[in-house]
Amino acid sequence: MPGATGCAYRVTISRADGAPNFAMRIFEVQAGGHTPLHQHPYEHEIYILEGAGTIWREDHEVPVRPGDVLFIPADERHQFKNTAPNTFKFICLIPAQFQKC
Amino acid sequence: MPGATGCAYRVTISRADGAPNFAMRIFEVQAGGHTPLHQHPYEHEIYILEGAGTIWREDHEVPVRPGDVLFIPADERHQFKNTAPNTFKFICLIPAQFQKC
Repeated sequence: MPGATGCAYRVTISRADGAPNFAMRIFEVQAGGHTPLHQHPYEHEIYILEGAGTIWREDHEVPVRPGDVLFIPADERHQFKNTAPNTFKFICLIPAQFQKC
Repeated sequence: MPGATGCAYRVTISRADGAPNFAMRIFEVQAGGHTPLHQHPYEHEIYILEGAGTIWREDHEVPVRPGDVLFIPADERHQFKNTAPNTFKFICLIPAQFQKC
């Protein structure tokens, strides 16, 4: 993905599994890594699993840690950054129709 | 909830937060506790956070542990049971229109 560094994700539940409404993906961002700063016409629901990072939300940065929950509405600019030496891991859900596989 | 013992949940993201499509809830089941054995016309997407338990799926039981992901389709009978001495904690997502608050 252009603008991403040191990150990967697995699709754990999607339409391929018969899930009609929303898709669950698990992201892992390595030390120094980040997702692209981008926006799109659908929301994210996030649960932080491991590590520590920040989430850029439109015009400010929010520190996050395991157990934190975030709702990122459609069209909000956002970016996830790892700020610790170990893996930054989180669940990210989107509406099923926007998940490609 | 009739049929439930020792369990509670928090609604962490719902329509009340502006989430249009799906709701995120976090369940905690205490030692010896369980959710009701029931079914409903909408799916669950599950991520196991802590503890250990079993999930009854229609006609058989599946052991689960942290990191496991499950998709429970609409109309499948299901029940979550804690099988360990500590809290059994998991994320459970449903379509937004079925979340009452």
